[in-house]
Amino acid sequence: MGCSHNMLGIRGVLDYVMSHLNPDGKSKIPLGHGDPSAFECFRTSIHVEDALIEAIRTGKYNGYSPADGLPQSRRVVADYLSRGFPYKLSEDDVYLTCGCSQAIDLALSVLAREGANILLPRPGFPQYEALMAYKGIEARHYDLVPERGWEVDLDQLDAIADSNTVAMVIINPSNPCGTVFTHDHLAKVAETAKRLGLLIISDEVYAHIVFGEKPFIPMGFFASTVPVLTLGSISKKWMVPGWRLGWLVTCDPHGILRKSQIIEGIKKLLNIVVDPSTIAQAALPQIIKKTTEDFDQQTLQLLSQAADICYDRIQKLNVLYCPAKPQGSMFVMVKINISSFVDIRDDIEFSAMLSKEESVIVLQGSPIGLKNWIRVTFAISPSVLEEGLDRITAFCMRHAKNT
Amino acid sequence: MGCSHNMLGIRGVLDYVMSHLNPDGKSKIPLGHGDPSAFECFRTSIHVEDALIEAIRTGKYNGYSPADGLPQSRRVVADYLSRGFPYKLSEDDVYLTCGCSQAIDLALSVLAREGANILLPRPGFPQYEALMAYKGIEARHYDLVPERGWEVDLDQLDAIADSNTVAMVIINPSNPCGTVFTHDHLAKVAETAKRLGLLIISDEVYAHIVFGEKPFIPMGFFASTVPVLTLGSISKKWMVPGWRLGWLVTCDPHGILRKSQIIEGIKKLLNIVVDPSTIAQAALPQIIKKTTEDFDQQTLQLLSQAADICYDRIQKLNVLYCPAKPQGSMFVMVKINISSFVDIRDDIEFSAMLSKEESVIVLQGSPIGLKNWIRVTFAISPSVLEEGLDRITAFCMRHAKNT
Ligand SMILES: Cc1ncc(COP(=O)(O)O)c(C=O)c1O
Ligand SMILES: Cc1ncc(COP(=O)(O)O)c(C=O)c1O
Repeated sequence: MGCSHNMLGIRGVLDYVMSHLNPDGKSKIPLGHGDPSAFECFRTSIHVEDALIEAIRTGKYNGYSPADGLPQSRRVVADYLSRGFPYKLSEDDVYLTCGCSQAIDLALSVLAREGANILLPRPGFPQYEALMAYKGIEARHYDLVPERGWEVDLDQLDAIADSNTVAMVIINPSNPCGTVFTHDHLAKVAETAKRLGLLIISDEVYAHIVFGEKPFIPMGFFASTVPVLTLGSISKKWMVPGWRLGWLVTCDPHGILRKSQIIEGIKKLLNIVVDPSTIAQAALPQIIKKTTEDFDQQTLQLLSQAADICYDRIQKLNVLYCPAKPQGSMFVMVKINISSFVDIRDDIEFSAMLSKEESVIVLQGSPIGLKNWIRVTFAISPSVLEEGLDRITAFCMRHAKNT
Repeated sequence: MGCSHNMLGIRGVLDYVMSHLNPDGKSKIPLGHGDPSAFECFRTSIHVEDALIEAIRTGKYNGYSPADGLPQSRRVVADYLSRGFPYKLSEDDVYLTCGCSQAIDLALSVLAREGANILLPRPGFPQYEALMAYKGIEARHYDLVPERGWEVDLDQLDAIADSNTVAMVIINPSNPCGTVFTHDHLAKVAETAKRLGLLIISDEVYAHIVFGEKPFIPMGFFASTVPVLTLGSISKKWMVPGWRLGWLVTCDPHGILRKSQIIEGIKKLLNIVVDPSTIAQAALPQIIKKTTEDFDQQTLQLLSQAADICYDRIQKLNVLYCPAKPQGSMFVMVKINISSFVDIRDDIEFSAMLSKEESVIVLQGSPIGLKNWIRVTFAISPSVLEEGLDRITAFCMRHAKNT
């Protein structure tokens, strides 16, 4: 179960861990995937549900949508995303998709060609590797450096890019690291990409899910330096991943993507791929407009508390270690001090045994690029999180060497 | 704009016709695509809307669904589809998809391999050709024979299939022909496929949309002769194509698809493709259970009347000709007696000029395999249909030779 060329997304990888669950064991604690929507405290706002219901009740959105998406909804996304930008996005820059997942698929598909390679972060989000393996695009990995708050190793980009490198992917706020890139760092990433002739695919599915000191800054802000494909969705901020609505946005004030036929390629692909629900598309303007500050603040406060609990309790265990306190997204990377364990040889065994003995699901680090690390989701209800951390603690005490 | 190797689906093809619309012309009459949901008389049942709203209000279906779909909904589809079957489908045979479109994509993807070819009906549904061109699967066409009520030319299957032929596609009730295959004919198709070692992809997106003498018979009925992948959706029968919910069902009582790794292939693909809305999935059991006979009867009666009007009025024009009165789906194929026209050379010109002069949109026959034919959708509100036929009549009178 290596990092790269297999066709397993997150779900496939987690299936492996879950296959070790003891059916007679304790209740399952899902610290594996990023979907807090099942917990009452993370239920979406009533305004979001109302928006969808109103769209249904009009009876006007039961039909097929245009391939690019409903124009009025594209316009709202363009306005929403370009707030504070040095230029304006237009509705033509926005393509509505089935979640951020389909936006990833589109971005990769439009760039796929014989021999092409794309630079991916390590650790990362395995859907990229799975899709690229399927499409025959070579994945090259650059490192996110734990000692530098999981920033991009910029020098390494120079080392691994070549004339067949068409793009680099960044994920900000970061899955799996829980970090948020600074303005300065993003500017450097943009400069480096420009120098190397790469476009940037910026996965911002966790946009605005930030609760530390660093504000979220969209990569599109730097699009006059380098063209950016911004990918996003309503899945995380509005806690409705099951509604399957997202966007691919071309941030391209100089028209480079148009000249290089990428826009044309996207439009062609949209004719043959599936569309997001017309009803969800129709609800989007209200979803964006009506969500109250209250809802956002409440969600972020919960996540912030959960991140603190998770970080503090893990730091207390001397057999596990978090290099950085999470400031965004829903995850933290945790290093397993593997030599401190008696009978656990690696992250795969760690997660399988934790699943079996404690019914706690965490994501192994190996499939996302870091052996002997795990990814822990803290975006669950606080009491369940505490219980999960209790069980992880007990598990570690049981298996760690006596020191 | 040939029939096969381009990447245009129906939408792309219709874009061409619509590009000829005169912006100062009459109101547009859409006889091009199969989406009556915009007309009040074809609005879905209130029970269908309620089912979706109830699913939203529970707050339980905002999250990601399993890759195969919600188990309870898969079970309901299995029961629904195997009514009257000589064997039972189980929930494991059902994979929920983003409309029938994604079911088509999955079926083709799982069969794609170097050198493979698949047999498609001519005339047909161009999404197949577009997807196969993209995936590099060769399309070979067998004819539907107008003189025999658009039945499959069975002898031709023998002639065009070879050792690289992996499957044949049938679309029943037929888009674009508006016909319904008999039990006898389906049995012969099954026998032929068996003899040739093909599996059958049966596109039943228009299942139960029948209003002539022939009942709809699912191909899955014959699955003990030959394995069948049944594709369907809620788009047509329930008039909600914008909700994007469908299914791919493996009808395989002898376990042939399992042995040949096709099931495994489907499961793998489902890990990397997008899922249908969890809310729509959750509503599915109620959608299927609660739709009243009344709603079905009303829809079918409307379609039946519309088909009659369309057929009768076209038969009266001696420059156009329908070989068969439609008995199902939403379409009829119409032959243009091209030598009767003064200044129209083919179906492409016919549809472009009709769009420009009369703002009536019909689908050209060439991109779906029949030069100098057009496909006319009758599934629109009766008054608009009458108006469209008036305009087609005026158009023909204006351009036909005086005889
Ligand atoms: C980094 C990243 N990108 C994309 C996605 C997919 O987002 P969506 O649910 O909107 O398809 C996820 C989901 O967890 C993610 O973590
Ligand atoms: C023959 C055929 N198959 C599949 C589809 C796609 O169905 P859905 O809207 O459920 O994706 C259509 C839509 O018109 C169709 O005519």
